[in-house]
Amino acid sequence: MPSFRPIDPTSAAFLLTESRNTPMHVGGLQLFENPPDAGPEFNQQMYQSMLDTPDVAPLFRKHPHRSVKTGGTLTWRDDDHIDLEYHVRHSALPKPGRIRELLELVGRLHSTRMAWERPLWEMHIIEGLADGRVAAYAKVHHSLVDGVSAMRLLASTLSTDPHRTGMPALFAEGASRKARPAEKSEGTVESPELTAARTLAELPGDALRTALGLSAEAAGMPLALVKTLRKGIRNETSAVSLAAPRTIFNQSITGARRFAAQDWPTERIRGVGKATGTTINDVVLAMCSGAMRRYLTELDALPEQSMVSMVPVGLKAQQAGIASAEGGNAIGSVMVRLATDLEDPADRLKAISRSMKDGKEALSSMTQAQIVAMSAIGMAPSLVIPALKMQGLVRPPFNLIISNVPGPRVPHYWNGAQLVGNYPVSIPMNGMALNITCASYAGNMGFGLTGCRRTVPHLQRLLTHLEDELTALEVAAGVS
Amino acid sequence: MPSFRPIDPTSAAFLLTESRNTPMHVGGLQLFENPPDAGPEFNQQMYQSMLDTPDVAPLFRKHPHRSVKTGGTLTWRDDDHIDLEYHVRHSALPKPGRIRELLELVGRLHSTRMAWERPLWEMHIIEGLADGRVAAYAKVHHSLVDGVSAMRLLASTLSTDPHRTGMPALFAEGASRKARPAEKSEGTVESPELTAARTLAELPGDALRTALGLSAEAAGMPLALVKTLRKGIRNETSAVSLAAPRTIFNQSITGARRFAAQDWPTERIRGVGKATGTTINDVVLAMCSGAMRRYLTELDALPEQSMVSMVPVGLKAQQAGIASAEGGNAIGSVMVRLATDLEDPADRLKAISRSMKDGKEALSSMTQAQIVAMSAIGMAPSLVIPALKMQGLVRPPFNLIISNVPGPRVPHYWNGAQLVGNYPVSIPMNGMALNITCASYAGNMGFGLTGCRRTVPHLQRLLTHLEDELTALEVAAGVS
Repeated sequence: MPSFRPIDPTSAAFLLTESRNTPMHVGGLQLFENPPDAGPEFNQQMYQSMLDTPDVAPLFRKHPHRSVKTGGTLTWRDDDHIDLEYHVRHSALPKPGRIRELLELVGRLHSTRMAWERPLWEMHIIEGLADGRVAAYAKVHHSLVDGVSAMRLLASTLSTDPHRTGMPALFAEGASRKARPAEKSEGTVESPELTAARTLAELPGDALRTALGLSAEAAGMPLALVKTLRKGIRNETSAVSLAAPRTIFNQSITGARRFAAQDWPTERIRGVGKATGTTINDVVLAMCSGAMRRYLTELDALPEQSMVSMVPVGLKAQQAGIASAEGGNAIGSVMVRLATDLEDPADRLKAISRSMKDGKEALSSMTQAQIVAMSAIGMAPSLVIPALKMQGLVRPPFNLIISNVPGPRVPHYWNGAQLVGNYPVSIPMNGMALNITCASYAGNMGFGLTGCRRTVPHLQRLLTHLEDELTALEVAAGVS
Repeated sequence: MPSFRPIDPTSAAFLLTESRNTPMHVGGLQLFENPPDAGPEFNQQMYQSMLDTPDVAPLFRKHPHRSVKTGGTLTWRDDDHIDLEYHVRHSALPKPGRIRELLELVGRLHSTRMAWERPLWEMHIIEGLADGRVAAYAKVHHSLVDGVSAMRLLASTLSTDPHRTGMPALFAEGASRKARPAEKSEGTVESPELTAARTLAELPGDALRTALGLSAEAAGMPLALVKTLRKGIRNETSAVSLAAPRTIFNQSITGARRFAAQDWPTERIRGVGKATGTTINDVVLAMCSGAMRRYLTELDALPEQSMVSMVPVGLKAQQAGIASAEGGNAIGSVMVRLATDLEDPADRLKAISRSMKDGKEALSSMTQAQIVAMSAIGMAPSLVIPALKMQGLVRPPFNLIISNVPGPRVPHYWNGAQLVGNYPVSIPMNGMALNITCASYAGNMGFGLTGCRRTVPHLQRLLTHLEDELTALEVAAGVS
């Protein structure tokens, strides 16, 4: 007897605004290094053990359903005969098995929309990297998780203990509990976030969201929200700036995606920050800004005016005036001028840092309604942006979203395999063809660039530009 | 300046009746053996040469478009910036690289729907088979080709000459012309069909169809058609029988597919036919019938009454009273009782052979309108079946479609790589969860079984049952 449970407004909105051109799932690409004593069958065995998972956590069991019995209402229904071989897939890369082939495959996998008739997730174990590492690409519908929660979920099901074995899959019931060492082994460090996130996938709520109450409320009041946001334009505070120049990124998109990803040592980024009195996040934004400036210049498409990025920032729940299901932090957003009109990398970094500060200050002096509005943009841009467009905004409210999600600081393992790379795969949308999401992990900053395959040509070039730009910033800061 | 051309009614119908659960593309899986002197880079080079194709044939260049300029009408528009890396994809199988891994991948690839924003085809070059063979899976929307034409197109772009090099890809402009030997080399045989089909992909028409005029007409008159078909029930001729027992195959389907495929030597099938006075097609139907009887018995789901298969049969264009664009044959359809209620394989074969004969006789004595109706079922079942259902038929008109498409009799090559296996991947639809399509090629009969992943569990078991059934038929016929 399947049970029916109503779907909260935010989850429903993510489901209903989805189209073939704008699938609404977030993803993650992980790279693992097998343990030194792994035999040739190690990966096959791990894959098989995933398929043998006896019980799947509630979050990964339910699927949306619209039935006559429920009067046509959208409900969650448990899939009682979950077909794990459908959700957990074994793939391989063609030769020569470089990162290039991996990114091409991830772009393809991220392009396909998930069907409502099954639980809204997929996990792909990918072999065939020439260097012997194994990749995992996971895909979860945005109605179930947001990016920050997905990151916490991942970390909660890994272990800091390289010798731990018998660990269940991420989607298994009790996975997060079992990842916790029975007794604290020496030399392992656990962040308080992980402790809080132990049983994420088993929460009784509908979805894993950093600020459930807030976003549900925001999704329920798009018009009031948009009104507040438009008022912001008149206030001309940078935190609510809603006018950016037109760029090639701000067009309608197609359903096909490209994905590019690479790591940079956090130490290098921090070095530039220390020498210039800016934050790691400022330097990340300056790298992105410079890389886009180079990219658009090559395409002869750089706008005269500075591009604007929406940057999600943490808000204390108290500040946001909302009750979060987990008592954790809410997410607001700041509009940052990327200073793409400035030629000098040092000037650009300085301008970005100032714009970020201005934005945060503006946020702290906002009214409650404005904060809710800004938070709604941060939490659910794919819901809010189309609403803004419908309200007749002629220029894009901002050019792209650049997020930076904090991840675990120490190495994590799954059955002895060490997580060595972690890259978010995000959601481009109509009018926002490129998304950049960064995730820190164990001394590296992983950049994940997700773009519409047609609207953002040669996406991979941005990786080279990011490296060149970090080097230029190091030179400018005198730390190279 | 893109040009707009109207879409003929049949093509439009295939586009408009498509849904996420019922993608409307046909596919083909080919296995190739590399030439003996192929280096380790052979496949990579062939793949690269495909990407370097300078001009793409018209059929593979156009995509459907609904624009304001054309008053909302569906039109074909050329994709002027065709992204070949999107359409031609290099994939690999995970270890151990058995046929099982290949079929799993083909099932997945066949499950995803194609977006209208690009030309409606994909070609996947798949490496990683443990035996060193290379696979190719091609996918083309049914609005562009039917199964028979796809087969002819494939053959027309291969060569009977194992030493021919520099051959263009299937989708290249002029591919069929260039596949023709400049001078006839000794020992090669070419069928007249191939000669007729030389420039298939370059035909000025909208789509490659065996009987274009007919199916366009049929699609334009679904109601009259259905009326004629329903009259057929009262006539009680087996050729138009429209009542079959309910089976697990006759349910609504999901969007995910499974695919199973295997070869059997035509000689074995012919041997049974000769000894029993039946045709190769009769024996193929008897294999399918017995295999499904075993399969459904295992699931405790065998209907008491015999199952009925729709079997497309060739019709002379004159007989069908239609003008075919290529002056070729039209396709009609016969309803064959599969005698799944009979236990003995010999009895079953006899009954099938008789039912087939009755059906063909009935077809020859039909009125023009009835023949058109039967042909419409044969040509475009995915359009006609839903129309029948809408007309309130409470029982399925038949249980499944079993087709048998003739292919080349002698080995064919592409740049020295020998085609050694060829299996059609077809379209399950709502109420018809399983499709069996066979294709003969160079001494083998390739069976392709395409099923809904949820409605037809353990599809692969049917392969074992097909082998067991052929053996049983050989024993019964005294030829083993």
